[in-house]
Amino acid sequence: MISYRKELWFKTNKRREFINITQDVQKAIDESLIKEGLVLINAMHITASVFINDNETGLLNDFEVFLEKLAPEKPYSQYQHNGYEDNADAHIKRTIMGREVICAITKGKLDFGPWEQIFYGEFDGMRKKRVLIKIIGD
Amino acid sequence: MISYRKELWFKTNKRREFINITQDVQKAIDESLIKEGLVLINAMHITASVFINDNETGLLNDFEVFLEKLAPEKPYSQYQHNGYEDNADAHIKRTIMGREVICAITKGKLDFGPWEQIFYGEFDGMRKKRVLIKIIGD
Amino acid sequence: MISYRKELWFKTNKRREFINITQDVQKAIDESLIKEGLVLINAMHITASVFINDNETGLLNDFEVFLEKLAPEKPYSQYQHNGYEDNADAHIKRTIMGREVICAITKGKLDFGPWEQIFYGEFDGMRKKRVLIKIIGD
Repeated sequence: MISYRKELWFKTNKRREFINITQDVQKAIDESLIKEGLVLINAMHITASVFINDNETGLLNDFEVFLEKLAPEKPYSQYQHNGYEDNADAHIKRTIMGREVICAITKGKLDFGPWEQIFYGEFDGMRKKRVLIKIIGD
Repeated sequence: MISYRKELWFKTNKRREFINITQDVQKAIDESLIKEGLVLINAMHITASVFINDNETGLLNDFEVFLEKLAPEKPYSQYQHNGYEDNADAHIKRTIMGREVICAITKGKLDFGPWEQIFYGEFDGMRKKRVLIKIIGD
Repeated sequence: MISYRKELWFKTNKRREFINITQDVQKAIDESLIKEGLVLINAMHITASVFINDNETGLLNDFEVFLEKLAPEKPYSQYQHNGYEDNADAHIKRTIMGREVICAITKGKLDFGPWEQIFYGEFDGMRKKRVLIKIIGD
């Protein structure tokens, strides 16, 4: 069994942003030389998400609207967490979208359906944050 | 380390449907000859889900009601994604229910609690779609 | 490849409770002697959750409020599942929070960002229930 570890770093311009990281993950798989195995991709921060969905601008906007309806950013006072912070909504939004994905690696490639793309979901950005890629296999 | 890969194919009769795939996953584990390891089961389409819950008809109906309340199918015009499509709700519903599950394999069996059952959740059906099973272990 | 399996048991005093299990998971990794690999931590019951977020009392209360708004416990009659049971809300709450997490193990430690903590989320407690830890690696 081989294992490989890599971090991706992000600093978004806005509080909330979705970034397609599919090519970064495939690059890490290439570097690992692993042909058959599993790759874990997880946000290392608890106000960010990694998820798989369609790379379509309208849909990403639909997610933003949906998440703001379920767990609105403001008023900040609606959340107990916001005594010294203002990001309780980001903790909840990340929970809905998910912390991590696990993908199969087959013949050295992400074993994906036709429209699967991996996204980093930032919900409390404008500062440096990380994603962990951990690959195990042969 | 051994790895094993299998696809399950579905074509549901309705737009939304839940299908118990627990036995199909155990069958794939049997075929793999893997006794100790992990099995990943993920929807290969971004409008479908794989999740674990109770095999109880009333509960599956409660999920349908819950998901329709959170992300209603209609009116289609409420979603930006629906310019040329009508399935934005299915993308959101699948996100709530989850893309994938990972299960432990112990002594060749799904290492499950008494009521755990694996479901394929279809949210935009009536066409051929796939689930990926990837197993690694010894 | 080595594998290691351990169960954690819980009996909460209240119907709903969040318990930090990060140290229990690290202890299992120590026992396994695995230095590089993946650890799966999953609820073995379908009305409980394992998730990663911040160990902050205000935030955990915000999650309780959020979940009760999305899938209220009462009135019990609002759910079809509650013919002979009263825990349909717990099945839905666990789905929102997630059944499982997968974490990377690097140099024998949980490979975590600064604030990541693993929680057991109980939504139908006051009886004995289990979490499964399964570790694979080298």
